[in-house]
Amino acid sequence: MSEPGLRLLRDRVRAFPDFPEPGVLFRDISPLLKDPVAFRTLIDLLEDHVKASFPKIDFIVGLDSRGFLIGPPLAQRLGIGFVPVRKKGKLPGATQSISYSLEYGKAELEIQSDAVEPGQKVVIVDDLLATGGTMCAACELLKRLKAEILECLVVIELKSLKGSEKLNSIPFHSLLQYD
Amino acid sequence: MSEPGLRLLRDRVRAFPDFPEPGVLFRDISPLLKDPVAFRTLIDLLEDHVKASFPKIDFIVGLDSRGFLIGPPLAQRLGIGFVPVRKKGKLPGATQSISYSLEYGKAELEIQSDAVEPGQKVVIVDDLLATGGTMCAACELLKRLKAEILECLVVIELKSLKGSEKLNSIPFHSLLQYD
Repeated sequence: MSEPGLRLLRDRVRAFPDFPEPGVLFRDISPLLKDPVAFRTLIDLLEDHVKASFPKIDFIVGLDSRGFLIGPPLAQRLGIGFVPVRKKGKLPGATQSISYSLEYGKAELEIQSDAVEPGQKVVIVDDLLATGGTMCAACELLKRLKAEILECLVVIELKSLKGSEKLNSIPFHSLLQYD
Repeated sequence: MSEPGLRLLRDRVRAFPDFPEPGVLFRDISPLLKDPVAFRTLIDLLEDHVKASFPKIDFIVGLDSRGFLIGPPLAQRLGIGFVPVRKKGKLPGATQSISYSLEYGKAELEIQSDAVEPGQKVVIVDDLLATGGTMCAACELLKRLKAEILECLVVIELKSLKGSEKLNSIPFHSLLQYD
């Protein structure tokens, strides 16, 4: 993996203390998306990783909302389709939905029931892995549709929250790691 | 504009009656995003339109959440940066926010105060224009930052709701029109 590329990405991630809650250090990728060179480098690195790891892949799955900033340009680059996992109540037609716990309260994710055929291979993309609750819920939805989850792939991993352990046997990869 | 391309896009938009409310015909772009050829054609057509219309453009601005599915791949194609307009409470740091009316109730949008410099040229992208309330609110945020709004650009326009009239003098373009 390209060290200068990763350094550029890290330079374009800002930290905001006490957002959205006191005690939380928020990692903001806005400057990365705004810089055309950094944004292109991000998609280059994700593309290189996916191509090197998975010779055959059907869809990039992205999580509402910040996974939508990363997943569609990656899918375009790979020449494959994109499937959204959305917050409850946003997707029409038959859906699978799952409720999961957040630090404060509960949330619900949905996927269209016809989004993926059994056996199709997907990589699930989000901007950041914290406690892993949202990513785990997304994996459960994909498993219900009998998709083959090749990997959960994020830009930023907050290591100290150990979210990747929650994913059990599902392969996981992050570009940037923070404590 | 490419007629076969537009026909392909139209073929990949599904209609769901009575979603999310009774009486609403929901236009679902999921099949379009899922089909690599259609998704690529969508970004091709948007890229061609923007390149032909605007020789100089600084950023694509996309609206939370479905504008995030379109804006980032378009920005990548154009080799420029992407700026998100988000629902309230999602962006750290100093923000501009605006409250606006929806059919039922109110909503609030935000942009980071340092997202755009005065005079920078932007195209605002969303998946769909209905009554135009969300797009108008986004324009107001960009005007506060003294950005030059070159155009509001959407995939789907619901003509009968006359949202484009609400945009007043701001140029507007849609790829697909429905009554």
